[in-house]
Amino acid sequence: MITNEQVLNAFRGVIHPEMKRNLVELGMVKDVAVEDGEVTVTLALPFMEIPIKDDLVSSLREAVSELDSELGTEVKLVEMSQQERTEFMTAAEGGPKPAQSVNRIAHVVTVLSGKGGVGKSSVTALMAIVLNRQGERVGVLDADITGPSQPKMFGLHQLPPVSKQGIIPAETPGGVKLMSINLLLPSDDEAVIWRGPLISSAIKQFWNEVLWGELDYLVVDLPPGTSDASLTVMQSIPLSGVLLVTSPQDLAGMVVRKAAHMAQRMKAPILGVVENMIYAICPKCGERIEVFGPSKAMHMTEQLGVPFLGRIPLDPELSRCCDEGEIELYDAELFEPIAEKLVERVPALKTPPVFPGN
Amino acid sequence: MITNEQVLNAFRGVIHPEMKRNLVELGMVKDVAVEDGEVTVTLALPFMEIPIKDDLVSSLREAVSELDSELGTEVKLVEMSQQERTEFMTAAEGGPKPAQSVNRIAHVVTVLSGKGGVGKSSVTALMAIVLNRQGERVGVLDADITGPSQPKMFGLHQLPPVSKQGIIPAETPGGVKLMSINLLLPSDDEAVIWRGPLISSAIKQFWNEVLWGELDYLVVDLPPGTSDASLTVMQSIPLSGVLLVTSPQDLAGMVVRKAAHMAQRMKAPILGVVENMIYAICPKCGERIEVFGPSKAMHMTEQLGVPFLGRIPLDPELSRCCDEGEIELYDAELFEPIAEKLVERVPALKTPPVFPGN
Repeated sequence: MITNEQVLNAFRGVIHPEMKRNLVELGMVKDVAVEDGEVTVTLALPFMEIPIKDDLVSSLREAVSELDSELGTEVKLVEMSQQERTEFMTAAEGGPKPAQSVNRIAHVVTVLSGKGGVGKSSVTALMAIVLNRQGERVGVLDADITGPSQPKMFGLHQLPPVSKQGIIPAETPGGVKLMSINLLLPSDDEAVIWRGPLISSAIKQFWNEVLWGELDYLVVDLPPGTSDASLTVMQSIPLSGVLLVTSPQDLAGMVVRKAAHMAQRMKAPILGVVENMIYAICPKCGERIEVFGPSKAMHMTEQLGVPFLGRIPLDPELSRCCDEGEIELYDAELFEPIAEKLVERVPALKTPPVFPGN
Repeated sequence: MITNEQVLNAFRGVIHPEMKRNLVELGMVKDVAVEDGEVTVTLALPFMEIPIKDDLVSSLREAVSELDSELGTEVKLVEMSQQERTEFMTAAEGGPKPAQSVNRIAHVVTVLSGKGGVGKSSVTALMAIVLNRQGERVGVLDADITGPSQPKMFGLHQLPPVSKQGIIPAETPGGVKLMSINLLLPSDDEAVIWRGPLISSAIKQFWNEVLWGELDYLVVDLPPGTSDASLTVMQSIPLSGVLLVTSPQDLAGMVVRKAAHMAQRMKAPILGVVENMIYAICPKCGERIEVFGPSKAMHMTEQLGVPFLGRIPLDPELSRCCDEGEIELYDAELFEPIAEKLVERVPALKTPPVFPGN
C-alpha cells in the first residue's frame, strides 16, 4: 500500500523545467491523498494560465505511475495567493537572501502607466515625499532600468555601499531610501542595453538584496509598457496595489487601459488613477490651457471600475525641481489629497508584518 | 597536407550556440588560409563585444586541432558591416522569407527617444505624412509592441489580411502603409503582456513577413528604453539611421543621451535630434509658455556631436487629431523643414537597392 509520504517523495523528483527546483520544494504541491487506488494531488500554480501547466500535470501523473502503475492520479489545479506566489519566487531563487531576513516592508505600491511621459516617475517621487513628510518610513525602488530618473530628481549620485547583508540604499536629504540602476553606473547618461532577463534580475536584486530595513511604504517606479519589468514586479514582489498614472490624451488613456488590464490579469489590486498634466497655467494672463485636451480620467475610471484619486496640472516649477535634483523642495500641496486617498486604501501598518521567507 | 577547403568543412561542424546554425552558413567565417603549419581564420562578429566571442574562438581552434593536432590556429576578429549583420540575422532565421524577395525598401529610419512621452510616435507619424505628401512611398512599422499608438493616430482598425507571400500591411487614407500589433488585437486596449523574446519575434515578423513592397522610406516607431525592442531593431534591420526625439526636460535629455550612446554602440548612424514640446501657446493672450522649461537640445546635440533638426511646439490641435485618428489631416507645415533636413541626410533612392537575402 502506497502512502501519502511515498507519493510526496516521488514528487520531489519532479523538477520545474524553468525554476530547476522540485515542485515540493517550490511549494507547488499543496495536498496529497491516496485513497481507493487513486492519488489526489492539489497543484498550486503561480497563475492559472502558465504555459507549462500541462507539462507539470503530466510529470506528476508519470511520477505516480512509476511508483505504482495501477494507481490513478487526479490533479486539482488551484491558483496561489499573492503571499504563496512570493514564497514560490523566493524558493525559486534558492531561499531568502540575508537582506530579506532584515527587511520589514508593510506595503509595496507600484506606479504603472503603460505609456511613457505621463509623469509616472514624478508621481512616484511625489508620493514618496508626501508620505515621508507625514512621518511614514518610505523607500523608492526604481524599476525603470533603461530609463531611470529617480536619482536625478532627488539629486543623488553616490554609489550605494555593499555590506555583508546586502546593498545599502541611498538616502535623500529628506530621508527617503532609494535604489536605482543609475546609482551604479559610472555616468548618468550611460546606456543600459539589456534584454529582458537581465532587466528582471536587476529588479529582483533591488527587491531581494537591498537592505531596505523597516518601511511603511515602498513605492516602485515602473518603466512604460507591459513587458519584462512590469511582469517581474507583479510576479516577484508582493504588492499592496497598483497606482495608475495617465494624461488627458486619448492615446495615453488607451495605453493605460492596457496597463489596467495587465494588473487585473496579474491579480494586482488597482488602488486608483491619477490624471497628470491636465492643464498649464499661462504665466502672463493666468489662463488654464489644456495642452493635451480636456480631462478624460473620470470617464476612464468609471469604465474600468477603479477609483479616481485626483488631477495634477503641468507645473514648470516641478520640471525645474526635477531637473535640479530638488524635487524634495517642491511644494507638493496639490498632491496631498491624492496621497491621502491612497493611504485610505492602503493604511500604514505601524507594526509591519514579518516578511515572507523569515 | 590540409587544404583551406578541409578547414572550411571542419568549421561547418561548429554550431553557433544561440543561432543553432553553423558558423560558415551564418557568414561568420570570412577567410581561411593554411600556411606553414598554421591556419589563419577571420571570424566576423555581429558586434565586437558579444559575450560568446571566446567560446566561438575556442570552438574554431578545437575544430582545427581535431583535423590535425599539429596545426596552429590564429583567429582574427572583425566586426560585421550593417549589411553583413542583416544577412547574418536572415541566415539565423533560416534564410529569407517570401515577403523579403518582394520587398524593396530604400531606407529604414528608426525614431528613438529613450524616455517616453516626448512625442516619438507623433514625430514618426508626422515624418511619414510629410514624406508621403512629397510623393515618397512610405511605410510605418510600429515596433512599440506593448504601447502601440500608430493605428489609433491614423484611425486604422481593420485586421491585415494574410496572403501566401506574407501579411498585407494596412494603408492609411493618405497611402502610408502601416503595420502594428494593435491591428492584430481583438480590442484597442487589450494588453500585450509579453517578455522580451516574444517582443523581438513580433518585430522581426513585421520586418520579414510583411509585404511592404517598394518603399522609399520605412519609419520605425520604437518604444521608450534601450532593451529588447530597440536592440532587435538595431540588430536585425539594416538602418539608414536613427532619429532622436527629446523634450526640454533635463530628465528627457539624460535619457535621450542614453539612447544616443546605445545607437553609437550599435553602430547605427544618428541622423539628428528633434526637440518636441518646446512651448505651448496661450489661446487667450498668445504667450509662449515653456511648460517643460527652456530649450536645451542645441546644447545636447553639440555635446553628442550630432545634427539638430528642429523644434516643435505643443499643439492641442495635434493632440486632437491624434485622438480622433485624423493625424493625416493635421497641417504639419512646421514639421516640413525637419523632414527636409532628414531627407538631405538620407536622400530618397528612386531605384531602391535589392534587399539582402535576394
